[in-house]
Amino acid sequence: MKPSKAPPLITLTTDFGIEDHYVGTMKGVIASICTDAHVIDITHGVPPYSTLAGAYAVSQASSYFPERTIHVAVVDPGVGSARRAIAVKAEEQYFIAPDNGLLSIILHRDPEAVIRSIENETVFLEAPSATFHGRDIFAPAAAHLASRQVKFVELGPEIDDAVVLHEVQPEQTNPNEWRGTVLSIDRFGNVISNLPAIASEAEPFRVSIGSTKVTRLSRTFSDNKPGELFVYQGSSGYLEIGLLQQSAAEKLGVKVGDSVALVLGASRQAHA
Amino acid sequence: MKPSKAPPLITLTTDFGIEDHYVGTMKGVIASICTDAHVIDITHGVPPYSTLAGAYAVSQASSYFPERTIHVAVVDPGVGSARRAIAVKAEEQYFIAPDNGLLSIILHRDPEAVIRSIENETVFLEAPSATFHGRDIFAPAAAHLASRQVKFVELGPEIDDAVVLHEVQPEQTNPNEWRGTVLSIDRFGNVISNLPAIASEAEPFRVSIGSTKVTRLSRTFSDNKPGELFVYQGSSGYLEIGLLQQSAAEKLGVKVGDSVALVLGASRQAHA
Amino acid sequence: MKPSKAPPLITLTTDFGIEDHYVGTMKGVIASICTDAHVIDITHGVPPYSTLAGAYAVSQASSYFPERTIHVAVVDPGVGSARRAIAVKAEEQYFIAPDNGLLSIILHRDPEAVIRSIENETVFLEAPSATFHGRDIFAPAAAHLASRQVKFVELGPEIDDAVVLHEVQPEQTNPNEWRGTVLSIDRFGNVISNLPAIASEAEPFRVSIGSTKVTRLSRTFSDNKPGELFVYQGSSGYLEIGLLQQSAAEKLGVKVGDSVALVLGASRQAHA
Repeated sequence: MKPSKAPPLITLTTDFGIEDHYVGTMKGVIASICTDAHVIDITHGVPPYSTLAGAYAVSQASSYFPERTIHVAVVDPGVGSARRAIAVKAEEQYFIAPDNGLLSIILHRDPEAVIRSIENETVFLEAPSATFHGRDIFAPAAAHLASRQVKFVELGPEIDDAVVLHEVQPEQTNPNEWRGTVLSIDRFGNVISNLPAIASEAEPFRVSIGSTKVTRLSRTFSDNKPGELFVYQGSSGYLEIGLLQQSAAEKLGVKVGDSVALVLGASRQAHA
Repeated sequence: MKPSKAPPLITLTTDFGIEDHYVGTMKGVIASICTDAHVIDITHGVPPYSTLAGAYAVSQASSYFPERTIHVAVVDPGVGSARRAIAVKAEEQYFIAPDNGLLSIILHRDPEAVIRSIENETVFLEAPSATFHGRDIFAPAAAHLASRQVKFVELGPEIDDAVVLHEVQPEQTNPNEWRGTVLSIDRFGNVISNLPAIASEAEPFRVSIGSTKVTRLSRTFSDNKPGELFVYQGSSGYLEIGLLQQSAAEKLGVKVGDSVALVLGASRQAHA
Repeated sequence: MKPSKAPPLITLTTDFGIEDHYVGTMKGVIASICTDAHVIDITHGVPPYSTLAGAYAVSQASSYFPERTIHVAVVDPGVGSARRAIAVKAEEQYFIAPDNGLLSIILHRDPEAVIRSIENETVFLEAPSATFHGRDIFAPAAAHLASRQVKFVELGPEIDDAVVLHEVQPEQTNPNEWRGTVLSIDRFGNVISNLPAIASEAEPFRVSIGSTKVTRLSRTFSDNKPGELFVYQGSSGYLEIGLLQQSAAEKLGVKVGDSVALVLGASRQAHA
């Protein structure tokens, strides 16, 4: 480890897409404030306005970054309204986002997380616009923090009422039953739930999603036949649903936010 | 400010998309010539061949970058023909592009801009191809400039007849009337015009686009009802047209290059 | 050249797309292991599961990168199965990929290439998943190599039976005839073959693809009329097929992996 040589790291997770100048402009703002920062894109392909899918993306990637990384997440349907901007210190890293649930999974994962409402206007660009807080509020706040010109405690007062999306956590409805939510659908059409990945070959189980029941478990994709839906322990740590070289999401007709349920010992119960 | 520590910055704006190796290859060329350069993508999603949308993207982002940043823009339907390659010094930054109007907004914005025709072949790759000047001409020219091995004045002779797209500037047709152009349509379907963002609540106004008239003004998106078109002062500084969580461009049926007009005091005049 | 200042360079070529967190997560892994590495995306838009298009992309870009660059390529339909992970030293650079033919063009191009099976588990993340070796195997192996904590020879034993895709090389079926393959279709719809770019204006030729024959040769795009298919020496060095400001691939109805043939002296032979 050579920590003194490591440049400050800032990541970006947005629903801005990459067809426009928006992401590049945010990077210009960062470079102007903290010249040695490295900026890494997590993704700008969060489905527009989906704070749930955004919460999933930033929480998945952040675990693999070094301590002190600053993660900026902007999925912001309420931009320009009275919603707060927040900064969170959690898991030895920093997170900057609108206060709309985007950091829900991070906040669930770290009960020691400290949340601040960003009210120190010296970290904003002058005369912020009403429609592009990524450029005017979030990127410059992150860059000031990265440059160490401003400390975390100086961003604003600590708060304890940040918005949390209840859907990020599955509900255990019975000793062997969970009701959860589709957090993300990836490029390959894999369906990523928030259910615990505890189905095993030791006992039958049933995953219900849309009007379909999936009862096959697999470790890898290549173990399966074309057309056969299967569940597997995703790289996310969650239960995922896949289909060999095809889109499981399309076959199932599901989207982010849809319900999904897991019943362990399912076949037995179905016959009981 | 620690200018001596700041690495040279190069930005890229193209219509190359990111499905292919083209952008990565340009970055390899840059890394081979200027090993410490930081390369930042503005966007590679400029609509294919649209020099107007490209001019908009680079001019929006560049304002937020530090002095001495080198911006490379390549939207180049005439690649391999006799069109020149140009380098521009404007707004304390550098711009490298084909001479086809891509830098029109920059040239309008800075009347002191200096334009040079890039004719110094030592800054090109050997034996440039006829179809990929991004790799063979523009990227290496920028990298040589970034490395300070070549000075701006050494790139080629100064010229005063660079191509400028007349559409980038709106026309004031009457004391209260402007005719302009759609410069860009963003991922969210917002329509970005080149009209001055001077509509205000103090007096009625009318924006005409396609067969639609928009007379509602808003500061933010979240202040509006679904389905209701509105104009707002965009983060671009220009007048933009939006629709809550939907595509205004799709509803209006407009595309980059289409006409848009603004009349202040419109309702009153309509009744006069 | 100031080699001591140059940071280690790692490139990424995958079919992961950029809608998800996957690529960002790989960069987090790299930043955690080798804090000063620069990571450059070649593309993440390889058509899903197309090892042929992936082989093309990485081999095109790599030629333009400096010595010692480490190229990570992941198009991996067999992830989690028994296929090996390999590291290749070729053309003064390193390549890390699944052993499924992704490095075929590199291996063809450098007969002196050294191939190793990556079996040193200390370069993997702990408890690798069965479905995301980009994060758990390939990115950390590259980062360890970049950090010089692990040497190339320490990655695993040398092998001589790596998978090579026979389609990457065209077949000379006659003194004046070649049968080849479509390696890639780019954003603009240009069709990139693996045929030698030896057609010339000196003698007639015929390129057969799908049910179409193309007999026009051009140096640039702008020399052509709308609607007229032409072949040209691509920036790839291969023979390519284009159509002015339109998609040649769509007009031809071809896709990656399709056959394409070149006959020199074609018209003459057709009448023989």
